[in-house]
Amino acid sequence: MIASAHKVIRCCRDLALFSEEPGRTTRTFLSPPMHDVHRHLSAWMRELDMQVSIDAAGNLRGVRTGASQRRLIIASHLDTVPNAGAFDGILGVVIGIALIEAFGREAPPVTIEIIGFSEEEGVRFGQPFIGSRALAGTLNDPDPSILDAIRAFGLDPAQLPAAKLSPDTIGYLEFHIEQGPVLESLDLPLGIVDTIAGQSRYNVTFHGKANHAGTTPMNLRHDALTAAARWILEVEKTANKTPGLVATVGALTVEPNATNVIPETVRASLDVRHACDQTRRSAVAHLLTGLTHEQRLDQPAVAMDAHLTSLLTAPHHMTSGAGHDAMILAAHVPTAMLLLRSPGGISHHPDETVLPSDVAAALETGVLFIERLSRDKSNRAATARERY
Amino acid sequence: MIASAHKVIRCCRDLALFSEEPGRTTRTFLSPPMHDVHRHLSAWMRELDMQVSIDAAGNLRGVRTGASQRRLIIASHLDTVPNAGAFDGILGVVIGIALIEAFGREAPPVTIEIIGFSEEEGVRFGQPFIGSRALAGTLNDPDPSILDAIRAFGLDPAQLPAAKLSPDTIGYLEFHIEQGPVLESLDLPLGIVDTIAGQSRYNVTFHGKANHAGTTPMNLRHDALTAAARWILEVEKTANKTPGLVATVGALTVEPNATNVIPETVRASLDVRHACDQTRRSAVAHLLTGLTHEQRLDQPAVAMDAHLTSLLTAPHHMTSGAGHDAMILAAHVPTAMLLLRSPGGISHHPDETVLPSDVAAALETGVLFIERLSRDKSNRAATARERY
Repeated sequence: MIASAHKVIRCCRDLALFSEEPGRTTRTFLSPPMHDVHRHLSAWMRELDMQVSIDAAGNLRGVRTGASQRRLIIASHLDTVPNAGAFDGILGVVIGIALIEAFGREAPPVTIEIIGFSEEEGVRFGQPFIGSRALAGTLNDPDPSILDAIRAFGLDPAQLPAAKLSPDTIGYLEFHIEQGPVLESLDLPLGIVDTIAGQSRYNVTFHGKANHAGTTPMNLRHDALTAAARWILEVEKTANKTPGLVATVGALTVEPNATNVIPETVRASLDVRHACDQTRRSAVAHLLTGLTHEQRLDQPAVAMDAHLTSLLTAPHHMTSGAGHDAMILAAHVPTAMLLLRSPGGISHHPDETVLPSDVAAALETGVLFIERLSRDKSNRAATARERY
Repeated sequence: MIASAHKVIRCCRDLALFSEEPGRTTRTFLSPPMHDVHRHLSAWMRELDMQVSIDAAGNLRGVRTGASQRRLIIASHLDTVPNAGAFDGILGVVIGIALIEAFGREAPPVTIEIIGFSEEEGVRFGQPFIGSRALAGTLNDPDPSILDAIRAFGLDPAQLPAAKLSPDTIGYLEFHIEQGPVLESLDLPLGIVDTIAGQSRYNVTFHGKANHAGTTPMNLRHDALTAAARWILEVEKTANKTPGLVATVGALTVEPNATNVIPETVRASLDVRHACDQTRRSAVAHLLTGLTHEQRLDQPAVAMDAHLTSLLTAPHHMTSGAGHDAMILAAHVPTAMLLLRSPGGISHHPDETVLPSDVAAALETGVLFIERLSRDKSNRAATARERY
C-alpha cells in the first residue's frame, strides 16, 4: 500500500495548487479553482470505471458499482480555509478514490460512492457544512447568496433535493487528519473516533472603568483586564481538572487599549468542548457565573455508530475535538470516522502534512473495513431506506 | 474669589469650543483653532495691561510688569488630547490670568509671566512637551515636520532660541487638574506636588504555539494568553504590595485572535510609576524577568523645588502620577505645582470638570503664594540668571 499512499499524498499536493490566491492554498465554496479540482479527480475516477457527477450543492460524486447494491459513502470536503495545508478534508476524498483503485478491475463487494463535499469550513458565507447538509437533506432555505453562488458555478438550485444521499446507503465513512497532537504524542498512526465533541462558544465582556494609569492608585481602580486575567486562569484550571475537557480563550480585545489608560472593557471568547454534553454545560455554567455573556454556539456532541465503528481496526479510540461532515451525516446514516496522525499537530497551515506510512495504514484499514462491511449480516447495517 | 472662579470655569468652557472637530474638543499642537484660543486669551490679557506675544514655538506669553523685575512664570498647556475635556492644561493658564486680574489696577509685587504652552500631550507628532522644551531651551533639532508646522502657523523657527525663559525668572508655578481620584477620595480641594513620578514603559511579548482549540488537549498546549494572564496578575500583585507604586497593563493584543485557535502571540504594554526611581526600577526588573521585552520609556522622577513649594499652602502633599510641563522646567528654574481635585477622577474625557469652590481655593492659594514669594529673601529664590 505504500506506493498507493505516496500517490495519494502527491495527488493532494497537486490539488493544493488549485487556489484562489497565488502562492498559497485558499479554495472556498464553489470558487473557480473548485472546477479544477473536480476535473482532476473526475478524470481519475472515470479511469476507475466510476460514474461521476456534480450535484446541485456542488458536491463531486463518483459511484463504483459493487457486487452488492448496498452502498458505502466515503467522503470528506474539498474546500479549504485561507492559506491552508494540502490535506485537511481533501485527503479523505483522495483516500476514498485510492481504495476503489485498490480493488483493481474487480468490482468491490459493496457499491462505493466517493463524495467530495463542496463546503465544510464555513469560510465563504460564514455557514459551515453546506455540502454535507445537502446530502443529509437539511440544507433548508439556503441564503440567496448561496443560491447565487450555486448558479454562478453552473448548477441549478432547483435540483438540491436530488442531492440527498441514496436510500441504498448503509454506511458513511470519513478519513480525516487529526488536526491535533494526540496521536503523535501516543506514537500512533490512526485513531478511531467514538464521539465528535459538543461545543459551546460564548462572547464574554468584562466591564471596568477607564482611568489614568499614572494618577489612579491601585486601590481605586476598576481594571477590566485584571478581572479578565483572573477568569482566563479559572478557565484553564477548570479544564485541567475536568478529564477530556478543553476550554480556550482564543480571542480577546481591550478598550481603549492604550499603555497609559486602565482598561475599561475587555471582550473575550470562550470555546469549551467535551464528549459529554452535561459535563460541558456544567463547566460553561461555572465559567459564566456573574459575567456578561452572549451565546454563539451550543452544539451537542455527536456519537459515531458503534456497530459500524467496530468494523474499523485501530489500537486507539478517541474523541474528535474538531467538527466534521460525519457529524452532519450521523443522524441520517450509520457513520464512522478514522483520524490520521497530524505531524506536529499542525493543521490550517501550509506546514500541515501527513506521513506516507500512516496513509498506507489508513488504506489497509479501509480495505479491511469494506470487506468486513460486505460480510456484515447485523440488523444495524440496514440501508438508509430501511432505517429512516 | 468665587465670582472669579466662575469666570475661570466659563472661560475654559468657551475655549473648549475652539476645536479641530465639530462637537468635540480636539486641539493639537498649532492646529488652526489654536489661533482662536490665542486671540481670545490675548484680548483678556491686554485688558489687564499685559504685553502679549507668541514665541516661535507657538507658546502664548503675557507679561504683567510688577513692583519687582524678578519674574514668576505661571504656565500650563493649551493643547488637548482628542475628544478632551475643558480643563486639562488650559485651566492652569486661565487661573494665571485670573490671578493677574485679582491684583486689579495695582501692579503685582513681582513681574508675572503667563504662558500657554503650545504642546504638552504629544498627540500631533508623538513628541510631548514641545512648548515647555522651547522655554527650557532643550528643544534641540526638532523634526522637520515640527518646523513645518511652526511655519504653517505663521511663525519663524529661526527665532526658537529667543523662546527661552527670561533670566529674571525666579520661579515656575503650574496649576493643573489632578486627573485622578486621590483628592476626591480624601475630600480635599487641593494637593501640593512634591514629586512627579518616574515612569517606565515597556512592550512585552509572550510566545505560545497556535493550535486547534478543539483538538489540542490542555496538557499539550502552549497558550500565550494564559501565560500573559498569570503575568498581569503578578503585575497587579507587585503594585499592591509596594506602597505608592502603580503598574498597569493597558494595551494587549492576541494573535491570531480567533475563537477556535489557541493564542500564539500576546503583546502587552507595561506602565510602572513611582516617586522613587530605585523602587520603580526594582519592580520593573522583577516583572520583566524571563520575558521578551522592549523598553519604550525610562523617565526619572522629578522633584519639585522644596523651598518654592513651601510657599504654597494646602493640607495635602502628593506625588503626581502624570507627567506635566513642570517636569521639563524643574531642571532650569525652581518649580512648584498645585493640583485641583478632579471630580470622579475623570480626565481626557468630555466629562472632565472642576468645582468652582476648588478653583476659588486655588486662586486664594495663588495670591498668597505671590505675596509670600515677593517677601521671600532666601538664597533659593535667586533668579534663573544667577542660578544657572
